[in-house]
Amino acid sequence: MSVKNTTLEQLSELLGAHGFANVIDGDGTVGIHAANTLEDAGEGDISFLANPRYTKLLGETKASAVIVKPQDDVPNGLATLRCSDPYGAITATIIHLYGDRDHPEWGIHERSTIAESARIGSGANIGPHVAIGSGALIGENATIYPGCYVGDGVVIGDNVTLFPNVVLYDGTQVGHRVSIHAGTVVGQDGLGYAPVDGKWLKIPQVGRTVIEDDVELGACCALDRATLGETRIGRGTKFSDMVVIGHGTKVGEHCMFVAQVGVAGSTKIGHHVTLAGQVGISGHLTIGDNVRVGAKSGVHSNIDAGAEYMGSPAVESSAFKRQASVVHRLPQLKKRVRDLETEVAELRLCLEEHVKRGE
Amino acid sequence: MSVKNTTLEQLSELLGAHGFANVIDGDGTVGIHAANTLEDAGEGDISFLANPRYTKLLGETKASAVIVKPQDDVPNGLATLRCSDPYGAITATIIHLYGDRDHPEWGIHERSTIAESARIGSGANIGPHVAIGSGALIGENATIYPGCYVGDGVVIGDNVTLFPNVVLYDGTQVGHRVSIHAGTVVGQDGLGYAPVDGKWLKIPQVGRTVIEDDVELGACCALDRATLGETRIGRGTKFSDMVVIGHGTKVGEHCMFVAQVGVAGSTKIGHHVTLAGQVGISGHLTIGDNVRVGAKSGVHSNIDAGAEYMGSPAVESSAFKRQASVVHRLPQLKKRVRDLETEVAELRLCLEEHVKRGE
Amino acid sequence: MSVKNTTLEQLSELLGAHGFANVIDGDGTVGIHAANTLEDAGEGDISFLANPRYTKLLGETKASAVIVKPQDDVPNGLATLRCSDPYGAITATIIHLYGDRDHPEWGIHERSTIAESARIGSGANIGPHVAIGSGALIGENATIYPGCYVGDGVVIGDNVTLFPNVVLYDGTQVGHRVSIHAGTVVGQDGLGYAPVDGKWLKIPQVGRTVIEDDVELGACCALDRATLGETRIGRGTKFSDMVVIGHGTKVGEHCMFVAQVGVAGSTKIGHHVTLAGQVGISGHLTIGDNVRVGAKSGVHSNIDAGAEYMGSPAVESSAFKRQASVVHRLPQLKKRVRDLETEVAELRLCLEEHVKRGE
Repeated sequence: MSVKNTTLEQLSELLGAHGFANVIDGDGTVGIHAANTLEDAGEGDISFLANPRYTKLLGETKASAVIVKPQDDVPNGLATLRCSDPYGAITATIIHLYGDRDHPEWGIHERSTIAESARIGSGANIGPHVAIGSGALIGENATIYPGCYVGDGVVIGDNVTLFPNVVLYDGTQVGHRVSIHAGTVVGQDGLGYAPVDGKWLKIPQVGRTVIEDDVELGACCALDRATLGETRIGRGTKFSDMVVIGHGTKVGEHCMFVAQVGVAGSTKIGHHVTLAGQVGISGHLTIGDNVRVGAKSGVHSNIDAGAEYMGSPAVESSAFKRQASVVHRLPQLKKRVRDLETEVAELRLCLEEHVKRGE
Repeated sequence: MSVKNTTLEQLSELLGAHGFANVIDGDGTVGIHAANTLEDAGEGDISFLANPRYTKLLGETKASAVIVKPQDDVPNGLATLRCSDPYGAITATIIHLYGDRDHPEWGIHERSTIAESARIGSGANIGPHVAIGSGALIGENATIYPGCYVGDGVVIGDNVTLFPNVVLYDGTQVGHRVSIHAGTVVGQDGLGYAPVDGKWLKIPQVGRTVIEDDVELGACCALDRATLGETRIGRGTKFSDMVVIGHGTKVGEHCMFVAQVGVAGSTKIGHHVTLAGQVGISGHLTIGDNVRVGAKSGVHSNIDAGAEYMGSPAVESSAFKRQASVVHRLPQLKKRVRDLETEVAELRLCLEEHVKRGE
Repeated sequence: MSVKNTTLEQLSELLGAHGFANVIDGDGTVGIHAANTLEDAGEGDISFLANPRYTKLLGETKASAVIVKPQDDVPNGLATLRCSDPYGAITATIIHLYGDRDHPEWGIHERSTIAESARIGSGANIGPHVAIGSGALIGENATIYPGCYVGDGVVIGDNVTLFPNVVLYDGTQVGHRVSIHAGTVVGQDGLGYAPVDGKWLKIPQVGRTVIEDDVELGACCALDRATLGETRIGRGTKFSDMVVIGHGTKVGEHCMFVAQVGVAGSTKIGHHVTLAGQVGISGHLTIGDNVRVGAKSGVHSNIDAGAEYMGSPAVESSAFKRQASVVHRLPQLKKRVRDLETEVAELRLCLEEHVKRGE
């Protein structure tokens, strides 16, 4: 990535123009040419504090400048930019310093193997050992890294990046500005079989997978094609690595799925849904908009819009936390029950004796 | 895939011949050229209702015909085929309409790299950028998509399909009619190390992986070779995506493993075993025939044939459900214990007072 | 792999020289040319018994010789080597018999595509369909299997093996004697986005991933590059298949992560940490040295050095086991509470009656 040289003053001005009101504390002329973590930063680096967990590192950093909140304590002499949203400001800073990722330039590499009937837009950058099938339609400015496979009849929009060894099965549709990281597979057959005489009879999987605009998929994901109709990933949705999507499942817009999430087939997921790491969702469910599911949860029922779920089987987070707090103290609860049993037995004895004596 | 044109009457006859007794309700001359979901179907599509969850969609579908159960309510004018097993009937319909998947035709592509000593049967269809190692033996009618790697001494049966970027390490054995989806890796070293002086000493992994006839593996699976002897996947078994099998593990015939299942090494799994999504099985266990394990369960002990397990650590499903119902009401149970404590304290006080008074 | 022929006597001597004191019971002249499991072994194979679970197989094995503990019962006539550490002895035996894995010999294959500015050390063995980017530096004796991608500016040490279809993104650094199994991806962008107006704004991921000496990674792993600074895997650490490491996470030396482990971003893991299969660790945590986490656990808090954790959310194993034993008997506990309620109600009635009568 190409990197710009700047100063803290210039950066302050730029951030202000982007809506991050800020003030400089200390030497604004200090040169900045990179961003880094507090721990790894050195001369010429700008760093930041957003998570209070790392406050201690402010005193140890070798960064040339830091972005912090107005009230944060910063060691004497460390050039400081104060702003109410350090995370937003460092994001804007990184975008300014580094810009978008640079790709190698292959043109259309002579060692790529492209079917005659495929149509490829202008500005294509296609690496060696890429195979593109017949009837494929690829938009403008595509970047396709080495080892990718684009199946027959695949349709890809403009400004798409396929990192190395991505596989798009035949008939897959990909929107504009989509990025798919290395090793991800889209459009393979799902687990569709009917049991016949103790064997599994394969049901031809004749649907496809559709990935809408502005989606980014992590490495080593697997998105099944639909048995019939479509598997669909909504506009602006982002997946981390090793996410699995079952056949016929529809994921809404602007969702975020963390690594190793698995969603079984024929489930509908709304927009702005967050699934934390290793979450599993059963098939044929409806998950509402803005739902949030905690890490490692297993969801076996529909979830209403806006709800927050945890646990396996997952329940509302507030209920889960109440349950979990009791579970963690179950041995004590068991002891309380045992103590009650002893006490009640004593009471009964005492009462019986007393009753007998009274008679 | 090639698609046949037919009519509802012709389909009715065909399904009858396949053992799906049925009657037509409405216009039997309607033309059918594709199958689709109730939601996505349009003119010329046949759809079906098998899961009552989707009954509402029957009233909204734009399908030209539907397959339903005898008693289902269907809107006026929608051509209907009634049959006691709509799922079986739509499966037969899809197989009839679409047949098996068509593959691109590469012959033996000049950009594949095949060792001189490899032997390849007639009818081979091998894509570009495939590498086949020395001594490999490949049966008839193999389809090997671009980017696959077939290691030295691999033996592959007839009518096998390797989708793009599949990797078979040296010595792997694959039966007839096996399909392996993109990105799956078979025969890599398992996690075999001995601890020596605080470091991990690698144990050479000198076994192999054997995949029997009629197995289908999903995308991005990883099946370790055995340390010694064999890792083996039994005839007719089907895996979804991202299934991991540890070194030396033996999976029986006609099993079904859903996505993200992991089985550690040296475990023996019987035939017709179903492992739902994200199940984990520890090493050195024995899992009986016809066992079913619920999604996200963690199995740490042997399971007898025919049992159904759930939870982590997994127990029999009936026990799990009893536990889970109590867990979900633990805060109430805790309150009941607290109430009892209060009440018992009151009783004790009352009794003591009474006893005292009586003396 | 090349295999040596030997006899039990010669092996006994060799093992003695490696510190495995042993005695032979039976025919020391028996020829040994391979190692195998008790179950799969045949003529000429040596096998072993380390796990008492398999004792029964000693009576059934067709091995020519076995390595067992001094006190183990062995059938008459089976040549036996007795030693206090059969697992260590068989490891040394396997290493002696098989040595390191042999690789195909490609030299630098003419169908690999290597940038002019890349520098490759002597002894390189690079397969077809490999792509190596500009400025890459590769040490001596590299083995790079077909379909690998080595990005721009990647630095690789000596004696490294990349199995088929491994992807190293630009800027990745790999130490000496590292092995990376097929389909593993290193250095892709992590899940770094800032929410802006209901959409996800991508934060350029400008850090890198560093893999230190003697690391081995299983198949289909995914190790994100850092947003800023480094993701780092410490010296001698071993991963099984499908391990995911988030951006900026640092894993210490000599750790072992079993299959399907996921560690979120910015977490620090000490040395000699063992994470069992399917464990998940949240981001921004600190996990101490020598920590052990049980299979399928979900870790949401820091863990002190030396601790053993289980469960989700994970707690100390001893606490988890106490909890779990109560959870498994919760229905009984609930019944005990119900019985107490009945009994207390009876007592109250009886007491009230008695009190009334006494008045």
